[in-house]
Amino acid sequence: MTVSSAPGKVYLFGEHAVVYGEPAVPCAVERRATVSVEPREDDHIRVEARDLSLDGFTVEYAGSTGDHPDVNVPTPLVEAAIGYIDAAVEQALDAAGESDVGFDITVESDIPLGAGLGSSAAVVVAGIDAATRALGVELDAEEIADRAYRAEYAVQDGQASRADTFCSTMGGAVRVEGDDCRTLDTPNLPFVVGFDGGAGDTGALVAGVRDLRERYGFAADTVDTIGDIVREGEELLSEADPESDPDESLLVELGNLMNFNHGLLEALGVSSRSLDNMVWAARTAGAHGAKLTGAGGGGCIVALDPTPETQTGLRFTPGCEDVFRAELATEGVRAEAEHDDASTGETAE
Amino acid sequence: MTVSSAPGKVYLFGEHAVVYGEPAVPCAVERRATVSVEPREDDHIRVEARDLSLDGFTVEYAGSTGDHPDVNVPTPLVEAAIGYIDAAVEQALDAAGESDVGFDITVESDIPLGAGLGSSAAVVVAGIDAATRALGVELDAEEIADRAYRAEYAVQDGQASRADTFCSTMGGAVRVEGDDCRTLDTPNLPFVVGFDGGAGDTGALVAGVRDLRERYGFAADTVDTIGDIVREGEELLSEADPESDPDESLLVELGNLMNFNHGLLEALGVSSRSLDNMVWAARTAGAHGAKLTGAGGGGCIVALDPTPETQTGLRFTPGCEDVFRAELATEGVRAEAEHDDASTGETAE
Repeated sequence: MTVSSAPGKVYLFGEHAVVYGEPAVPCAVERRATVSVEPREDDHIRVEARDLSLDGFTVEYAGSTGDHPDVNVPTPLVEAAIGYIDAAVEQALDAAGESDVGFDITVESDIPLGAGLGSSAAVVVAGIDAATRALGVELDAEEIADRAYRAEYAVQDGQASRADTFCSTMGGAVRVEGDDCRTLDTPNLPFVVGFDGGAGDTGALVAGVRDLRERYGFAADTVDTIGDIVREGEELLSEADPESDPDESLLVELGNLMNFNHGLLEALGVSSRSLDNMVWAARTAGAHGAKLTGAGGGGCIVALDPTPETQTGLRFTPGCEDVFRAELATEGVRAEAEHDDASTGETAE
Repeated sequence: MTVSSAPGKVYLFGEHAVVYGEPAVPCAVERRATVSVEPREDDHIRVEARDLSLDGFTVEYAGSTGDHPDVNVPTPLVEAAIGYIDAAVEQALDAAGESDVGFDITVESDIPLGAGLGSSAAVVVAGIDAATRALGVELDAEEIADRAYRAEYAVQDGQASRADTFCSTMGGAVRVEGDDCRTLDTPNLPFVVGFDGGAGDTGALVAGVRDLRERYGFAADTVDTIGDIVREGEELLSEADPESDPDESLLVELGNLMNFNHGLLEALGVSSRSLDNMVWAARTAGAHGAKLTGAGGGGCIVALDPTPETQTGLRFTPGCEDVFRAELATEGVRAEAEHDDASTGETAE
């Protein structure tokens, strides 16, 4: 049994626009997906998923090239999760030069699925790391990030950016612009996440922005404008001392940029009633800024507030199902000690 | 006693950006301010205001150049209303070549104050028309619009655009870009207005956009982008048959542009929690699009829906105090027959 974990992320700035070559700044946060893999005697893949914001499911099928069987919880989210695990296994086999190895795979995650916190990237990154290590191959972080990107790219029909997978692999705050991926040295920002219990349809949301952008020059300009906000934001971050707590003026300025970014995302049609409701609740509670994070359409918002006020405010906001402080995850993908919770409940090695 | 009325308006597109020379398309709607004036023997101005979303007030003071006395309801909104009436009287005296004529003035309005429906422009336009006619001068519409603009400009410290006053004077849909004001021939759009019972501080909101625009290139770009939406919208309107009801595809496209425009206004910081809440309620109810109208910060939203659904949805939305269908007011400023309701309760002529 080989176990790896990788963090989810919030977007400080730049989701959606990053698909069109604009920069984005995602920040890894301490919510992790943990993937345990155990090579099998045959070439079957058995996936057991727990805690994916649903009741868990188990599915077994014949290798990454075989037909996918019926799933016991056949929701679109589960189908999506299987697709990512499948693509991760394919990358791991390719990296190890293997083709007919099967795995028992257990996925545990405290990152809600499809909610804008990068659950799929975390699963793919942890899955590639665990599966390659199980096959005796040690990939460096750059290669894990690259293979994870290729896995997402395949599953998402070419609509992926490197942002989520690079961020989940490296941890911390990162800056991604096309193929150019860098880690950023930033102070630990006081993120608060609100979750409406829902999920957006990433594919449809990305397609919606693409349609608007192709149809209207002003929508293309709006995407460019998001890139300008990101550039402004990273300049602010670069001037801050990464070793000390961010000072109030930095939080105020970052918050203003987050608010502006959120409005442009709302213009692009990727917000939702409950996301806007949580964004306003956070601002009303005193957050320096708040925006949706990720693809939108439902799921999570991220706010900036060093005080407990925003958490309290969101906790009393109807439609906000969960609130938590999201510490910056300075570690990206990492090997985990095998533990009972992560076992499949069958034989541990 | 001379009585004039002028309509309020909703912004189909372009508020705020119009201040910076971008085009805007306000549409006059059948909510009117009625101003009755009666020249006095002395040069005092006595203003009685009713139905201005507050309990009414009466104030008397010595001429437009004299000191303003205490008002019995000294809210900022009343102060503002007096400022507009004052400026309208000044314009009327100037047009008539008079200087020492006083008036008893009664203002009645079913346009909520400061709520984005152009209450101040309607009062100024109707006031100038009534006061000049009372002095035996008949101004043409262009001059009324121009003088009303100058009155607003004076009261608002140079932050006025010609949009509100031109629209209220001419009626119907208009297109204003800097000093270039035109009437548009449009079909009667199915406007629904939701009102949160509040008001925004127009001066502070306009100043907020100005600050953002001076500070950030991306905010200036966002203002420009609003102009592009307006140009797109007016092209759609120009292709529609003004004689028949708008077809669904036009409403869908206009609605998309309204939604986009709202997001950009939200980015510029001029929306509010209750405005966004009503916007989402309207969209959820099936409106083709919805946006705040006017300066924002509170007040009204305008939605596009030929069915009763949006009205019903807004009626059941907590925080929405009033909902009404806003028919396009094809008539702008007009003389009204004197009627008892419009009299000051004192001697009618």
